[in-house]
Amino acid sequence: MGGSLAMALRPFISHLTIIDRDPETRTACVAIADAVTDNFADGVREATLVILAVPARAIVGLLQELPAVRPDGCAVMDIGSTKGDICAAMAALPPQFESIGGHPMCGKEISGFAAADGDLYRGQTFVLCSHAGTAAVLQETAVEITHHIGANPIHLPPATHDQLVAAISHLPYLASATVMRTAAALADERAWPVSASGFRDTSRIAGSDPQMMLDILLTNKTAVLTQLAQFQELLTAVTTHLQNDDQAALRDWLNQAQAEHRHYKKQGR
Amino acid sequence: MGGSLAMALRPFISHLTIIDRDPETRTACVAIADAVTDNFADGVREATLVILAVPARAIVGLLQELPAVRPDGCAVMDIGSTKGDICAAMAALPPQFESIGGHPMCGKEISGFAAADGDLYRGQTFVLCSHAGTAAVLQETAVEITHHIGANPIHLPPATHDQLVAAISHLPYLASATVMRTAAALADERAWPVSASGFRDTSRIAGSDPQMMLDILLTNKTAVLTQLAQFQELLTAVTTHLQNDDQAALRDWLNQAQAEHRHYKKQGR
Repeated sequence: MGGSLAMALRPFISHLTIIDRDPETRTACVAIADAVTDNFADGVREATLVILAVPARAIVGLLQELPAVRPDGCAVMDIGSTKGDICAAMAALPPQFESIGGHPMCGKEISGFAAADGDLYRGQTFVLCSHAGTAAVLQETAVEITHHIGANPIHLPPATHDQLVAAISHLPYLASATVMRTAAALADERAWPVSASGFRDTSRIAGSDPQMMLDILLTNKTAVLTQLAQFQELLTAVTTHLQNDDQAALRDWLNQAQAEHRHYKKQGR
Repeated sequence: MGGSLAMALRPFISHLTIIDRDPETRTACVAIADAVTDNFADGVREATLVILAVPARAIVGLLQELPAVRPDGCAVMDIGSTKGDICAAMAALPPQFESIGGHPMCGKEISGFAAADGDLYRGQTFVLCSHAGTAAVLQETAVEITHHIGANPIHLPPATHDQLVAAISHLPYLASATVMRTAAALADERAWPVSASGFRDTSRIAGSDPQMMLDILLTNKTAVLTQLAQFQELLTAVTTHLQNDDQAALRDWLNQAQAEHRHYKKQGR
């Protein structure tokens, strides 16, 4: 994600420093960066804007390190998957820092600089989360960045972002993974040739990186648990209708799902 | 599904009669059929092989009508989505009937003859379900039919078919529909621009035809309820790990889902 952002932004910035712990990534990104380092303090020393592109809990850790390695302050943005903890850590930075949360709503199943793609963000939604201390000028810079990379900015409070992504991303991941685990629990290899496109699509995000998902679930625990409770309630309802052979209630439940899916598709997604 | 099968089989059969209640469909399929009728008794009167391509409960109804309208018997096959009830109704036919259940593992989100496609079955799995009374010669004919349309036949007992499709098709549908209903329960229109490909794929089959799905769920109730219970158990486990901040257990659970997804993808699906 960070590599794709660096590629997309490259034409619009005069000096680009890339900080990465992986030696292969550092070798690969020499082609697009003015400076490459594995040292956070060195990398941020002269930056006007630091963009943090690591897992959510690591972003919080780097924000906490920032005042020590950059005592004179700078502007900070991130592209982490959850925003509550990160924006709270941003709001806790000393006043010489300016900060705004970001979350581009796109991704790749493969990661690493080799998979980086300067067109990754084109046409995609890019959520921007200001906190109480975010200055209007950094908001404008952040919007400009989203325009440079071809994304569509949308401003949301951090808590709203986290609630929405719990419902449209984190819960769907858990449902997809549970679909996969339920089918695997059959322990019947004949299931795979019998499976078709419905299973393929419903189970796709079960293949997401567990470390990344662990990080996301733990930093968005409250909102994810709320959505899990809502999901369980709806699933229990349809299960009860089926157990009771209640055709009218079952039909209503299924019709409602189809109607809601049609409404969602009308939003051009 | 029936229209696509008629198109795919047309080059291999000398006389094709299509029976359909819809006047538009009857008009459209004149182009490929030797005879077209809305009357089941008329349509099956001289058939060597009758292929029933209607929802599962309607197939059971037609199988029960068959002895009265075709007293001398014939061969019968179907392409319904569940097989237990249908194969039981087939086994109950008088001895002058030969019968075998079928279920091609593919479909279209749009239905009707206008959406028919002679290549629909190419490369897809076609389940064949013999019952105690299915003769070897009809099994061979059924395999030949699957080869004619480019599908890959797989033989399964009806109960095994129903258990497998409960896990890899009917439960994923209910999970997908519940994902859709959970997101819609937010009642926040900002959810849709924030949603990305993960939500799109996980929610796709929530848009399936409710009448068809109602029919499937009711004719496969026992197997679907078993899979729902397994799904609930796995989802409750991951929810508990998250509630308890049990990172080790959560990581194991997510790793297992990814490993199972990799195994499934290795089967070339």
